[in-house]
Amino acid sequence: MYYIGIDVGGMSIKGGIVTKEGAIISKAVIETRDCYDSDYSISLDIKKVIDELLAKSNIALDEIEGIGIGQPGSIDYDKGIIRYSNNIALTNVPVRDELSKYFDLPVFIDNDANCAALGEYVFGDAKKYKNIVFVTLGTGVGTGIITDGKMIRGRGNAGAEGGHMVIRINGNKCNCGRRGCWETYASVSALIRQTQAAMDKYPDSLMHKIAKEEGKINGKVSFKAARQGDEAGLKVVKQYMKYVAEGLTNLVNIFRPDVVLIGGGISFEGEYLTLPIQRMVNRNSFGAKYNPKTKVFSASLTNDAGILGAAALIVK
Amino acid sequence: MYYIGIDVGGMSIKGGIVTKEGAIISKAVIETRDCYDSDYSISLDIKKVIDELLAKSNIALDEIEGIGIGQPGSIDYDKGIIRYSNNIALTNVPVRDELSKYFDLPVFIDNDANCAALGEYVFGDAKKYKNIVFVTLGTGVGTGIITDGKMIRGRGNAGAEGGHMVIRINGNKCNCGRRGCWETYASVSALIRQTQAAMDKYPDSLMHKIAKEEGKINGKVSFKAARQGDEAGLKVVKQYMKYVAEGLTNLVNIFRPDVVLIGGGISFEGEYLTLPIQRMVNRNSFGAKYNPKTKVFSASLTNDAGILGAAALIVK
Repeated sequence: MYYIGIDVGGMSIKGGIVTKEGAIISKAVIETRDCYDSDYSISLDIKKVIDELLAKSNIALDEIEGIGIGQPGSIDYDKGIIRYSNNIALTNVPVRDELSKYFDLPVFIDNDANCAALGEYVFGDAKKYKNIVFVTLGTGVGTGIITDGKMIRGRGNAGAEGGHMVIRINGNKCNCGRRGCWETYASVSALIRQTQAAMDKYPDSLMHKIAKEEGKINGKVSFKAARQGDEAGLKVVKQYMKYVAEGLTNLVNIFRPDVVLIGGGISFEGEYLTLPIQRMVNRNSFGAKYNPKTKVFSASLTNDAGILGAAALIVK
Repeated sequence: MYYIGIDVGGMSIKGGIVTKEGAIISKAVIETRDCYDSDYSISLDIKKVIDELLAKSNIALDEIEGIGIGQPGSIDYDKGIIRYSNNIALTNVPVRDELSKYFDLPVFIDNDANCAALGEYVFGDAKKYKNIVFVTLGTGVGTGIITDGKMIRGRGNAGAEGGHMVIRINGNKCNCGRRGCWETYASVSALIRQTQAAMDKYPDSLMHKIAKEEGKINGKVSFKAARQGDEAGLKVVKQYMKYVAEGLTNLVNIFRPDVVLIGGGISFEGEYLTLPIQRMVNRNSFGAKYNPKTKVFSASLTNDAGILGAAALIVK
C-alpha cells in the first residue's frame, strides 16, 4: 500500500507517491495559479497532480491508502476545509468533499506546520519520540506539536500558533495585530532585520562583503560572518539564538517534549545553531536541575519534507 | 462504586469519598507534618486519612475504584512518585508503591494544577468541553491543560508549566531563575506588589482604607477599590487583567481551547474579572476574525476542588 502526499505552496503544487517506509517512488508538480475561485477550485489542480502521479507510477487506485494534503493557512482538519489562506487567496474551500468526487479514498488536509511535525514523527528522526515540538523558522515562525503521540490541534484546528506567543509585551509590531510575538524576533525575516541594523551600526563588519556576495541580506549573512569570527556577526547570531531559545524554553515548559526540531532553511546551520540553543533551553527551563533534558535538533527531512509530511497525515 | 480523593497541602491532608456524580459522602482531614523522611513517609499520613474515611463511611474497600492524590510540586505521574516538592519538603517519594502495600487499589498521583483542570473536566462546568485551559492565579500561576480530552503532561509529567512562560524578556525576576515569566505579572503575589506600588504613588486612593479594613494588602484591595470607582484601583485592576490576558492569549493561540477557566481565590471576582479578560483574549488571539471564540469562566468547583480533582485522576 502507498500514500499520496500533496504539498501546496504559493509557487507550486507538488505531489508524491510515498511508501510505508517514507520513500517517494513517483513525483509530479504543477504551478500554483494566481487565482482560484468558485469556477476553478484549487481541488482541480490537486486532482491534476494526483492523476499524473497515478499515470506515471502505474499504481492502481486500490493500492493507495489515502490522500494527504499540506497547505499553508487556517485549515479545518475535521471537516477537510481550507478555512482561510492569505498567501494563496482562499476562503472556505471544501477540499475533502471536492476530491472525494474523483477519488474513492480518505482525504486529509492540514496546515503545513502540522504536516512538517507529523512528517518527522512518522518518517523522520523523531520517529522514536512521542513528545515533539517542531518549529519552522522562516518568513514567520510556525509550530507543530505532538504530545504523547498526538497532534495538538485545538478547537477547529486553530491551535499550535506558537509563533504568536508574546515574549515581549509592547514589543515589535506583529502582523497578527499583537505586539511582541515570538515570530517578530525569531523568524528569518526578523534575523534579516537584525542583520541590517547591525550592518548599519558596524560599517566595517564582514557582513557587508558577505551580503554583496549573496546578492542581498538574507538569513545566512550573519551566520557566515560569525563563523569567520566577525564580532558584529557573532553579536547578531548570539542575540538571535537567545530569541529563538526564549520562545522554545516557553514551549518546553508547557510541553516538556523529548525533542525540539528546528526546520526551515536556517536549519542547515546545523549544530552551530542547535547546540547553543539546546544549552540555553536546558539551562533555563523550569526545574532544570531535576527535570528531564530536551534535545534540540535540525529537522531531518529536507527535500520533499512537504510531500512526506502530507503523506504522514494518512498514517496519524 | 466510589473514588477516594486526597488533597495534600502545606497545612493539611484532606480526603473524601466521592461518588461518580462528584458528591462527597465522607470527609477526613489531618495536619501536614513539618517534616517527612525515610522513617516517616507522607504515605503514612495519607494512609491515616484513607483509613478514617473508610471507617467513617462504612464503605468496604471493594466498593472503591481507586485512590487519587493531588500534590503540589513535580510529580512523576507514570511512576507514581513525588519527584520534588519544596512547599512540603519531599524528594523522590514512591507514594504509589508505598500505598499499594496497604490498599489493593489503583493509585494515581499528580500535581494539584493538573488535578484542578481534571476536576473541572470530570465533575465541573467544563464537563461538556474537550479542550480546556485551567489557570490558577495564586502565589504563582499554575496551569492544567486538556486537549482533545487528554491531559498535557509531557515527558516525565514535567510539562504544563504555563506560568513560567516569559511574556517580557528581561522582565521581573522569577524564582524559577528566568526573567519575565507570566507568573511574575499575573499571580496574586504580583497583583499585591502592583497594588502596593500604586498605593505608594496615590496616597489618596481608596485602597489605603480598604487595606486597613482587610488588615493587609491582599488580592482583594484593588478590586474592591475599583468596584467603588477609585481611579488608582481601576488602573491597577485594568493593568493586572491585561497581564492575565496576555499570557492567556498566548495559551489560546497554542491550544485554541473551548474554554479557559480561572481558579484561585481571585476567581471569586467572577465576571468582573473574566468578562474583560474574555474580550481581550478574543480580540487579540490569532486570526480573531475567522477563528472560533474562547469562553473565559471562573472555576466552578470551589469548596473541596482539591478532593474532587484528585478523585478525577481515577476517572481520566
